Amino acid sequence: MNIIETIQSKLKEINVKAYVILTADYHQSEYISDYFKIRAYISGFTGSAGSLVITENEARLWTDGRYFLQAEKQLEDSGIVLMKMGEPKVRTIYNYLAGVLGDNGTLLFDGKMVSINFIKELEKELKYKVNYKTTDNIINLIWPNRPQLPQDKIYYLDEFFTGSSYQEKRKQVLNKMNENKCDVFVLTSLEDEAWLFNLRGNDVLYTPVFLAYTVITEKETILYVDKNKITKDLKPYLKDNEIIVKEYDELYKDLYKLEAKKIWLDPNKVNYQIYNIVKGKNEVFLKTNPTLELKCIKNEVEIKNTKLAHIKDGVAVTEFMYYLKHLDFKEKVTETKVSHYLLNLRKRQKGFIEPSFNTICAFGANGAMLHYSPSLESDAEIVKDNLLLVDSGGQYLEGTTDITRTFAIGQITDEQKELFTTVLKSVINLSRAVFLEGCRGNNLDILARGPIWEKLLDYRCGTGHGVGHVLSVHEGPNGFRWKIVPEREDSAILKEGMITTNEPGVYLEDKFGIRTENEMLCVDAGTSEYGHFLKFETITYVPIDLDAINIDMLRKDEKEWLNNYHQMVYDTLKEYFSGDMLAWFTFATRKI
Amino acid sequence: MNIIETIQSKLKEINVKAYVILTADYHQSEYISDYFKIRAYISGFTGSAGSLVITENEARLWTDGRYFLQAEKQLEDSGIVLMKMGEPKVRTIYNYLAGVLGDNGTLLFDGKMVSINFIKELEKELKYKVNYKTTDNIINLIWPNRPQLPQDKIYYLDEFFTGSSYQEKRKQVLNKMNENKCDVFVLTSLEDEAWLFNLRGNDVLYTPVFLAYTVITEKETILYVDKNKITKDLKPYLKDNEIIVKEYDELYKDLYKLEAKKIWLDPNKVNYQIYNIVKGKNEVFLKTNPTLELKCIKNEVEIKNTKLAHIKDGVAVTEFMYYLKHLDFKEKVTETKVSHYLLNLRKRQKGFIEPSFNTICAFGANGAMLHYSPSLESDAEIVKDNLLLVDSGGQYLEGTTDITRTFAIGQITDEQKELFTTVLKSVINLSRAVFLEGCRGNNLDILARGPIWEKLLDYRCGTGHGVGHVLSVHEGPNGFRWKIVPEREDSAILKEGMITTNEPGVYLEDKFGIRTENEMLCVDAGTSEYGHFLKFETITYVPIDLDAINIDMLRKDEKEWLNNYHQMVYDTLKEYFSGDMLAWFTFATRKI
Repeated sequence: MNIIETIQSKLKEINVKAYVILTADYHQSEYISDYFKIRAYISGFTGSAGSLVITENEARLWTDGRYFLQAEKQLEDSGIVLMKMGEPKVRTIYNYLAGVLGDNGTLLFDGKMVSINFIKELEKELKYKVNYKTTDNIINLIWPNRPQLPQDKIYYLDEFFTGSSYQEKRKQVLNKMNENKCDVFVLTSLEDEAWLFNLRGNDVLYTPVFLAYTVITEKETILYVDKNKITKDLKPYLKDNEIIVKEYDELYKDLYKLEAKKIWLDPNKVNYQIYNIVKGKNEVFLKTNPTLELKCIKNEVEIKNTKLAHIKDGVAVTEFMYYLKHLDFKEKVTETKVSHYLLNLRKRQKGFIEPSFNTICAFGANGAMLHYSPSLESDAEIVKDNLLLVDSGGQYLEGTTDITRTFAIGQITDEQKELFTTVLKSVINLSRAVFLEGCRGNNLDILARGPIWEKLLDYRCGTGHGVGHVLSVHEGPNGFRWKIVPEREDSAILKEGMITTNEPGVYLEDKFGIRTENEMLCVDAGTSEYGHFLKFETITYVPIDLDAINIDMLRKDEKEWLNNYHQMVYDTLKEYFSGDMLAWFTFATRKI
Repeated sequence: MNIIETIQSKLKEINVKAYVILTADYHQSEYISDYFKIRAYISGFTGSAGSLVITENEARLWTDGRYFLQAEKQLEDSGIVLMKMGEPKVRTIYNYLAGVLGDNGTLLFDGKMVSINFIKELEKELKYKVNYKTTDNIINLIWPNRPQLPQDKIYYLDEFFTGSSYQEKRKQVLNKMNENKCDVFVLTSLEDEAWLFNLRGNDVLYTPVFLAYTVITEKETILYVDKNKITKDLKPYLKDNEIIVKEYDELYKDLYKLEAKKIWLDPNKVNYQIYNIVKGKNEVFLKTNPTLELKCIKNEVEIKNTKLAHIKDGVAVTEFMYYLKHLDFKEKVTETKVSHYLLNLRKRQKGFIEPSFNTICAFGANGAMLHYSPSLESDAEIVKDNLLLVDSGGQYLEGTTDITRTFAIGQITDEQKELFTTVLKSVINLSRAVFLEGCRGNNLDILARGPIWEKLLDYRCGTGHGVGHVLSVHEGPNGFRWKIVPEREDSAILKEGMITTNEPGVYLEDKFGIRTENEMLCVDAGTSEYGHFLKFETITYVPIDLDAINIDMLRKDEKEWLNNYHQMVYDTLKEYFSGDMLAWFTFATRKI
């Protein structure tokens, strides 16, 4: 009996119609630690996004366009039906579950691993409250060697880096609670907790956060966290700040005792079990965490440090570009090999913590797959003459980075140059925007997408996303996207101090992919009788490959932008280079 | 005792807290006939938008920024308090009424002159259902010499102009009703009724429509209209199409008898009295009229005819431009005088019916007032050297037009040229958009606004609005606006066959105003694997004043657009001109 059959027999035994396993931890994190990879363990599909439903008779897995190919392969002999999200006529998981549950079937799930909104969406489809059971016994049954919860230590990120104390941030949060007449705020999203406490950890890949829950009231702040993670050095900080520490799991017991007038829960972030415990006795206020809009506005110290992180990252990526441009191809080079080379260059930078996401390093046709990463099974050799797309980033003590450059390896075709230049026009067009405060990403998106749409091409993703400060590389509530998708929470009004990526691209299936990505800080552009205007300052410092440009396609004003950008890159990084490297760098940033 | 005192004493007598008079007819039309101008009669304020509330102790009038100056003047000795909508801290009419009504005060209004949504909005503020009385007796009391309802005849607009029969349109409407499981549809918006029946009238200034209600069921269509308006010639058409004609007012009696499973009412358009009669016995389906999205997609015949209307209008406005450019100033010319000259040029065009709105003809500083029209009190003399802004349009049997040109009269300043050229860049930038189907006006608005925002300037209105076909010059659901305003219903997804104006501008208070406005037809731009792309075809044919341009500010591609546009204008209109006029026209459309 395989795992799915074991589960199915259990479902019959406990009289349950379906078992739902989402990709999540108890905090609805974007990346999850191994302990939470239940869906991957059961299904064999290891992509970063996917939802599995097992019923008495079948199993289905929902995933999105990034993973159709990978999921098809990995699910091949599993008997699991692949549900391609976004394709016409593919039922949503909610609609499917409603069909399976019928009039009052029981659903099985881990209440800590689904959000409040997941259940609310399901109940909209069901048109009644869901009956459910929870899963603890089942996981033990099917996954005897489940990895442990992560055990890494927590550390304090100095105010030298963060620019604002925990006390100041707590005050801001209390103000928001008062505005909304809430007396308790339960914060469970890891980035927001790390931001609030100026603490970082190592529990989640790519994001320096730690597993914890936080409960804030006017009177006190309680941090629920594995106490073993708290070093001796950290204890005075917690004590001085009157942060009460309790064990991670104790939250749930405390919640049963909680009596609040009004309790704030973010329905996209807080798990259903928490909601379920508190909703009876307390008035629940369901609204996006106030910390989301507080932490996205970077203060002066965060901005200064983020720029330092970009300088370090710029040095590493520029050295990487030098390496790529000087490959002699005597030895075999592959996507994996150059990815490691890039990682090592980043590691040489002081304060580097880890990559900020899984490096995309895609040669030739692989570049056309939006989220391709090289692996043991797929690791293309890099040869002349084609394009290499590298999308990567770093976590530094100073900040988080995300950059894409597409490099001409040898000679590239006229078509490749034409489209590289088109993507560059897109980047430039958005970079130069001046706009009235009040605009959202969807007002500006066409500036990037326009030059690509003109060629009847498009990229099937947003133009850019917010970036955290020594936190998640994908951070709301800002972003660029032409259609607002409310549940993504990335279409907030753009404000001074927000950092957003600008990363249009062109992807020709089986041919190549091109993306150029800079990060942009939103800054003041002046105030007139018409209001407050904003613009962007580009804070990514790496040459854009002039070998890949068709200069004739650029207008005078576009050349000017590119020359100014390269001058800034040169001025910013030149002191870090010397000898051949400096000579090449000078040439790579030349005026055209 | 003046009128307001008379009303106040009546209010006390019938124990009513407040009397609301909106600017409306029974159909929530944009322009209203004299019979309905109760607010203007009572208050003395004659602007096209304003809401009056009279309580036992006071009277207040809400209007928007276009009319602050005019309202201040006209209300000067009336004792009526002016409420400047949009200014900070000015209470909304709903909020004010809620305060006046308290816990269960009674409100007086004409149920036929407020929309369902007005009452729903008010009830949101009140948090309970409104108590009310209706007004008929009061109007008779205060307005003995009230004008009659309009009496003009109704005429059939040939399928040669409309391209689609009443029967076809009825079928489309029935399909929409079936989709939404409605068995009765009550249509009360005049443009939609005129469109449905291919009939036109003359009951409302600037819009060739007639006062009527329509009730549609699977079985029959009933047109409620003053039977005197139906000529002998029209009767066979109505009979052949089985359109049942009843008297205008009979609708209300019939509604009492109506028993429907589900009845469709547009809450922005249908008056509250209708809703109130039917809501008890019937399920009411509140949704925008299906005719709104049907009539905005112009068919091939409408498009062909609309272009013919634009040619006629182009001839008239180009002749007007010739006249302006050849003024010798020996006689005094004023805004009113040139407006009449323009009207006479339009009247010379076959098929011209009337202006499509109140002509804006604003010289120098008057141009900075967004909706200025010359009048007896304000009629500036046109002299050298300044800008003249003329925004006007015509109703023709072939279609409806709306065009703005700003003309250099004599020499203009460098600043004027710079801003004229900036506005031109805006027009060009939006005109050239290529975009994926699914975009709304708010996705594209920045293309027009961008060049103006770059100078920290803005215009305090949308960039463009939909235009009807021999109907209202302002027609939803399409438009360009960077912030969506749901109640305006002008942010629909842009589709092939929609016509929208492109009219950015710059307005410097006490100095001058610049606006250039073309109409654009949305057309196919091709289909790729990424979807269906759209673009715009400009259908306004009048030279843009080259005397007002700073050529050095235009990029090569912008000059190309302008040259192509002028070439098209030349090719389209040259056959209508000869002699000096043709020579001048050739020069006015020259390549730069």
